[in-house]
Amino acid sequence: QRQRFLDGFAEVMMSFHRLSDVDIDELAERWRQLSSGADRAVLGHELTLFLMRNPEARETVAAQRLDIIRSLGEFISKNVARIGGTLTIEAEMLARVILAANDGITLDSHLDGEDLYRPYLQLVMSSVRT
Amino acid sequence: QRQRFLDGFAEVMMSFHRLSDVDIDELAERWRQLSSGADRAVLGHELTLFLMRNPEARETVAAQRLDIIRSLGEFISKNVARIGGTLTIEAEMLARVILAANDGITLDSHLDGEDLYRPYLQLVMSSVRT
Repeated sequence: QRQRFLDGFAEVMMSFHRLSDVDIDELAERWRQLSSGADRAVLGHELTLFLMRNPEARETVAAQRLDIIRSLGEFISKNVARIGGTLTIEAEMLARVILAANDGITLDSHLDGEDLYRPYLQLVMSSVRT
Repeated sequence: QRQRFLDGFAEVMMSFHRLSDVDIDELAERWRQLSSGADRAVLGHELTLFLMRNPEARETVAAQRLDIIRSLGEFISKNVARIGGTLTIEAEMLARVILAANDGITLDSHLDGEDLYRPYLQLVMSSVRT
């Protein structure tokens, strides 16, 4: 499910060819579509709480978590290089921050009826410099 | 509890007098101390899930949530002005993004044993310009 989310995002990213092409409104709109039900974000929060309560389960999912982090990190590296930008935060670390923050951004956007996708993506994009 | 967290943070912020004084390592270290048990972040996630499951409960906490957002927004405005910076994202919106993301940053830092506070704060601070 997270892969589908990333693929949907990737599609928009691929339409940008230079840093100046990057349209945060378009990225935010895609996020809004992809997370309309918020189910994925609820599952993410539940999994986090489950792992907090059950330390012995962490190892079982550690490899999978690392895979997701690495694949998002690579996606970020490649795309930032493709549009001619450089990162102010190391790609894999940025991937970790994004994965840690995303679900909360989605859920609070739902709960408060306030679109946090755009300002959040603006923050994330501020880690890319020309 | 969230107030104590903000107060602890405020103390460090008050020690900065210019934007160039802002020491992200020091902010990250304070955060690490304030969230060492991760209990507050667990409660935050639980409350979010509860509100997702019980829409009728949202109104009960709406006023309190708005108070927290406003008080953090004011804190950000005042401190950014004090150190001579300007925000690229409106203060109250930035407060919402921070409140939505914080718990996930704390919990994933615990789960993966990887310090996300520093890169996350670096992202947040990138919304402040001279």
